[in-house]
Amino acid sequence: MTRFNGLDEFGLIAHLTARYRAALQKQEPAAGGVLVDIGDDAAVLAAVAGEELLMTTDTMVEGVHFLPETMGFADVGYKAVAASVSDIAAMGGTPRYVVLSIAIADAVSLPDLEALYDGVAAICSDARCALVGGDVVHTPGPFVITSTVLGGVPAGTAVKRSGARPGDVVFVTGTVGASGAGLALLQASGVLLPADEAAALRTCHQRPLPQVGAGQILRSCGATSLDDISDGLASELNEIARASQVRLRIDTARIPLLPALQNFARSRSEDPYEYAWYGGEDYQLVGTASPFAFARALAQCESIGVKLTQIGRVEPGDGEVVAQFPDGRIDLVEPRGYNHFK
Amino acid sequence: MTRFNGLDEFGLIAHLTARYRAALQKQEPAAGGVLVDIGDDAAVLAAVAGEELLMTTDTMVEGVHFLPETMGFADVGYKAVAASVSDIAAMGGTPRYVVLSIAIADAVSLPDLEALYDGVAAICSDARCALVGGDVVHTPGPFVITSTVLGGVPAGTAVKRSGARPGDVVFVTGTVGASGAGLALLQASGVLLPADEAAALRTCHQRPLPQVGAGQILRSCGATSLDDISDGLASELNEIARASQVRLRIDTARIPLLPALQNFARSRSEDPYEYAWYGGEDYQLVGTASPFAFARALAQCESIGVKLTQIGRVEPGDGEVVAQFPDGRIDLVEPRGYNHFK
Repeated sequence: MTRFNGLDEFGLIAHLTARYRAALQKQEPAAGGVLVDIGDDAAVLAAVAGEELLMTTDTMVEGVHFLPETMGFADVGYKAVAASVSDIAAMGGTPRYVVLSIAIADAVSLPDLEALYDGVAAICSDARCALVGGDVVHTPGPFVITSTVLGGVPAGTAVKRSGARPGDVVFVTGTVGASGAGLALLQASGVLLPADEAAALRTCHQRPLPQVGAGQILRSCGATSLDDISDGLASELNEIARASQVRLRIDTARIPLLPALQNFARSRSEDPYEYAWYGGEDYQLVGTASPFAFARALAQCESIGVKLTQIGRVEPGDGEVVAQFPDGRIDLVEPRGYNHFK
Repeated sequence: MTRFNGLDEFGLIAHLTARYRAALQKQEPAAGGVLVDIGDDAAVLAAVAGEELLMTTDTMVEGVHFLPETMGFADVGYKAVAASVSDIAAMGGTPRYVVLSIAIADAVSLPDLEALYDGVAAICSDARCALVGGDVVHTPGPFVITSTVLGGVPAGTAVKRSGARPGDVVFVTGTVGASGAGLALLQASGVLLPADEAAALRTCHQRPLPQVGAGQILRSCGATSLDDISDGLASELNEIARASQVRLRIDTARIPLLPALQNFARSRSEDPYEYAWYGGEDYQLVGTASPFAFARALAQCESIGVKLTQIGRVEPGDGEVVAQFPDGRIDLVEPRGYNHFK
């Protein structure tokens, strides 16, 4: 069978590994730590003295997590690894090593897979980590990709979800909701936005950049909780509130939205905040810190070009999230968001 | 939707995590190293001073890697993690932490998933490692499971495939071919073997025990190369020969076969060695060592109940494997075995 130009499983792995290496835009910063690379039974990796390890995994299924119409294979490769890198960022850590497993559907071509590994190289360059292994199998069903990322964090400093305390500031990095709006835009017909605004929303959906630098700053400044926005602000805030057993009071007018998102929602007579609360896949960070720690982190994040915005405060409570609207109305925010099997 | 007794994604993860913990037969030896467990963005894990890290991943797809008729869900959970643990064993390492991703097909029930996590608990008990995270998603296609295992090995001692030297002994642990014969038996009709022999072959296929202890002994005794038998003896020996740029001469009469395998093959008028060469999924170890190192490892492996058998020797060469038969005939062994896309 000559499905992949006659490449068998081992040939395909070698081909895609070479493709990944050629596509790397920068030196892999972790490369010095890779002692035995792709090709043996397991990768051998240097540990960093004084660090604890962070490990996380994410799976994306075609037709469930992405559609061919909204995500090219390069985007899929980028975003699959970005989702795991974002989990490392949400602990305040440094992503270092990636292993990638793909189950290849019948309709997938060699150029598709090459594009996938170009996308993986792009996120590995952006997040300064290295692909060190994986598995490549066939599936009669839809394409499935699983990314597992190993990272490090100075011992005893990982930022959990459970440390929010009354009096803390609630903050987010960047803006929220653009990824969900980008998806809606990709599925919409007609011209709804100027080209640059449309491109900005699409990029937020297809190539979300995990906030590794901001996570490290927030950790070193003493953030008390941190989570990444994969399922939407409503879901993540509820996770922090529940894990910390506090009430988070959110001032909705302070939630930072991209102007392109506001224009997009206006063009469809939608509430732009719906995308922020329930859209998900922004891969921004949301968390809490003392006012003093927040002020320090704000300045340091600004120095790396990341905007940190206070969106509320922490109060005594029992694990709930309330939204306070400009008209004075207050609502309980349910933890709904993207959720399998619901 | 009440597909899993009304559990949503988060409830399902909590339910299966509890199931895993309840099913653990022994204390997780790595549990002391788990600083932040399942439930936050990423697991936080202690590194062991003086060790390097080992990382490997394996994916199994229903209908490709296993069939409902031959593998129950508990077997699937066991074997998926065992495949990755075996890769750690093949580096001479210690498996410590597991993350597991499952893409759940429509036909899968909650009892199926509970059985899966019972199997995961069984292999984690057997291999003394801990499940520390994962992902649970829906797929419209076949069930897919991806296991990623993180292990450790004393710095600078990981056993690669590339160190075989002329004069070395070629060895295997245990017996070879029983997994492939077990699969054939599970797919056959009629009574072909006594019940105890049939059960032995089935167990070799459904619950292969990775050779972690033997791998550690072989590493500490100075084995020059090591590989685990996932694709069959022919494929793994060729990998060692090619990586080490030597010739491996195998004395076929010395390849250790389970009596049950010999009886099974005889009952079907098959060559039992075909299962050893090309069956795969034995998850035994194959490798090379100096005669002195081999003698030391032989005694130590015997003390933990693992048989080590010399099956050949290493000669100068260019990466080939030759088989020498009892009748004096010599054949080149092609690296075929289980291979996707071929």
